[in-house]
Amino acid sequence: MSDRRTDPDSFTPTKRSQLRRAHERASYDRKSLHAVLDAGIICHVGYVIDAQPYVSPTMYWRDGDLLYWHGSSASRMIQATTTGAPVCVTASHFDGLVLARSGFHSSVNYRSATLFGTARAVEDRTQKMAQLEALIERLTPGRWAEQRAPTEPEFKGTMVAVMEIEEASVKTRSGPPSDDEEDYASPMWAGVLPLATTVGEPVPDPRLKPDTPLPGYVKAFRIG
Amino acid sequence: MSDRRTDPDSFTPTKRSQLRRAHERASYDRKSLHAVLDAGIICHVGYVIDAQPYVSPTMYWRDGDLLYWHGSSASRMIQATTTGAPVCVTASHFDGLVLARSGFHSSVNYRSATLFGTARAVEDRTQKMAQLEALIERLTPGRWAEQRAPTEPEFKGTMVAVMEIEEASVKTRSGPPSDDEEDYASPMWAGVLPLATTVGEPVPDPRLKPDTPLPGYVKAFRIG
Repeated sequence: MSDRRTDPDSFTPTKRSQLRRAHERASYDRKSLHAVLDAGIICHVGYVIDAQPYVSPTMYWRDGDLLYWHGSSASRMIQATTTGAPVCVTASHFDGLVLARSGFHSSVNYRSATLFGTARAVEDRTQKMAQLEALIERLTPGRWAEQRAPTEPEFKGTMVAVMEIEEASVKTRSGPPSDDEEDYASPMWAGVLPLATTVGEPVPDPRLKPDTPLPGYVKAFRIG
Repeated sequence: MSDRRTDPDSFTPTKRSQLRRAHERASYDRKSLHAVLDAGIICHVGYVIDAQPYVSPTMYWRDGDLLYWHGSSASRMIQATTTGAPVCVTASHFDGLVLARSGFHSSVNYRSATLFGTARAVEDRTQKMAQLEALIERLTPGRWAEQRAPTEPEFKGTMVAVMEIEEASVKTRSGPPSDDEEDYASPMWAGVLPLATTVGEPVPDPRLKPDTPLPGYVKAFRIG
């Protein structure tokens, strides 16, 4: 645990972000947090309306300790998460099934980041446009300049939310099963079944003009 | 939209589950819901403590309209989601990046289910053991009988949560970009970059006894 004032590289956990259980690796440092966030595309945003929790999957992107997401102005998620109300964002990667010699020690390998803060709408026109560009450029560098620019109704109909990350925790598990010592005598198979998000062959739009070249950023696309 | 009393195959959306925007396919029927749930392993559970939302990734499994997850009795998530408080569970699959000819129509292909209800702990000993078995057997059929059975402290230290699905909505997008008609004249590449969760080669535990055969359920493992 560290103090944000004395350790600029880490978040200071309070009751809401302090992880309770120690058998998996917990961290609160920015480097670990950024690594988990930068390895993914989709997060799950949690918010509360009239005491009812909601969880919405959405794309995100990051600039320092600012996390961004966007959506239609008509979206309940966007409306609820741009009011300054408390928000929890979780980004997680599922890396494998851990098949141990007991059910109790069977587990999953994963990397997960949970972020707390409040979010608001990016109102400034220039900043908002820059963030829409950042979303496109993060995934497909060079595409923003090729695409048809947003029309005024499109621009107005889209909201960009920004959350300053106030607190965050990272939790990971990796490696083989951690069985009880006496269970290693078992004759059964044990190990890890790795899982990963993989990119398939690009599927051209059926209305693509013949001989349209595949851009380098599509060929080179990798998650994270 | 349908009435649960007159249409047993569908959930009746209220304000909290009714999807607001029509450009993506929304459904409320059980068949669509079960298809999305049965295609995945990890969900994100949303709950509220002192007006603060939390989102926790966890494994889930399903029996009819009952959704189950589990965790350590010490887990904040398990404690908060077995009190009868409102819970939102979202299970989502990210199927591809949709690269349209405008940023506005660029999107993701996905299948996502959002479930609302209240959860409680499975207290009955026989039912709880049966659900722990169901979790293992869903993923690795036959493994429950091979594994070392839970000890009493392990059994007591694990809680199984069950939520009756009161309301649920499914939202999906698939297929090529839906560009504005005039944008199809653009010379740029457009299409879909497919993404999928794939299973890698099993990694044997370094302490596995030599010549331990790989079980059929590991060789045959597929997600969903």
